[in-house]
Amino acid sequence: MHINESNTYAEVERASSAYEVALTTNDVALLDALFWDSPHTLRFGTTENLAGYDEIRAFRAQRPSKALMRTVTQRWITTFGDRFAVANITFVRDGEARIGRQSQTWVKIDGNWKVVAAHVSWMDEPKAPQ
Amino acid sequence: MHINESNTYAEVERASSAYEVALTTNDVALLDALFWDSPHTLRFGTTENLAGYDEIRAFRAQRPSKALMRTVTQRWITTFGDRFAVANITFVRDGEARIGRQSQTWVKIDGNWKVVAAHVSWMDEPKAPQ
Repeated sequence: MHINESNTYAEVERASSAYEVALTTNDVALLDALFWDSPHTLRFGTTENLAGYDEIRAFRAQRPSKALMRTVTQRWITTFGDRFAVANITFVRDGEARIGRQSQTWVKIDGNWKVVAAHVSWMDEPKAPQ
Repeated sequence: MHINESNTYAEVERASSAYEVALTTNDVALLDALFWDSPHTLRFGTTENLAGYDEIRAFRAQRPSKALMRTVTQRWITTFGDRFAVANITFVRDGEARIGRQSQTWVKIDGNWKVVAAHVSWMDEPKAPQ
C-alpha cells in the first residue's frame, strides 16, 4: 500500500485546510459537505458525542458562531493508498489553557474526500507521579 | 466501496476486542503488536500526545499497570472496503466521573490489522447556555 503518495497527500492536505477555514469561520454548509452523509459517521466533540450525520448537522446548526477561532500548532497527515487518510492536529484557543487535539479519518467516497469519524478533545494535565 | 462487508467487519471486531483485553490486562506486547510500527503512527491519550511508534511503545513500557480497567458502554465499527476501518467506543472507569471516548483508525497492512491513529479523551461537561 502506498503511504503518502504525493497527489493523494496534497488532496487530503487541501481538504484538511478547507475544513479548518470552514470551522473557524463557521461555514456550516461547507462543514456539512465535508462530513460523510451517513448514519455511520461519528463525531466526538469536547462536550458531546454525536452518532450519525443528522446529529452532527443538528449540532452545527445550533452552535454559537462566536469563539470558534483557534490556532493549529501541529498537523500530521498520513494517506494509505489513494482513498484513505488520517489527519491529526494540535491547537490552542484564547481563554483555554489546555492543549486541543483533533483527529479525523478521511475516506474518498464517490470522488470526494469526506470525514467519516472525528474526535476533538482538550488534553488533561499530566498527573504527577504517585 | 463496500461498507461493513461482513467478513471485514468481523475481522475488525476481533481486533478491536483483542485490543480492549490487552489494554485492561496491560498486555504490552500485544498492544505494541496491534499498533502500526511506523513513525507516522499517532496516539493522543488523555494526558499525552505521542507521535511515532517509538514514543507510543516507550509510553506503554513505563505506564503503571494498575487502574487500567474500564467498562465499554458503546462501540461503533465501520469498515470501508477490505482494508480500512474506524472503531470508536465510549467507556467509564471507577473513580472518574467523566465519559471516556476512544477512537481508532485501523488499516490492514501486510495482512494484519493495525491501529494507525488513536485518540482517547475524557469528555467535558456540556456548558450551560450563556
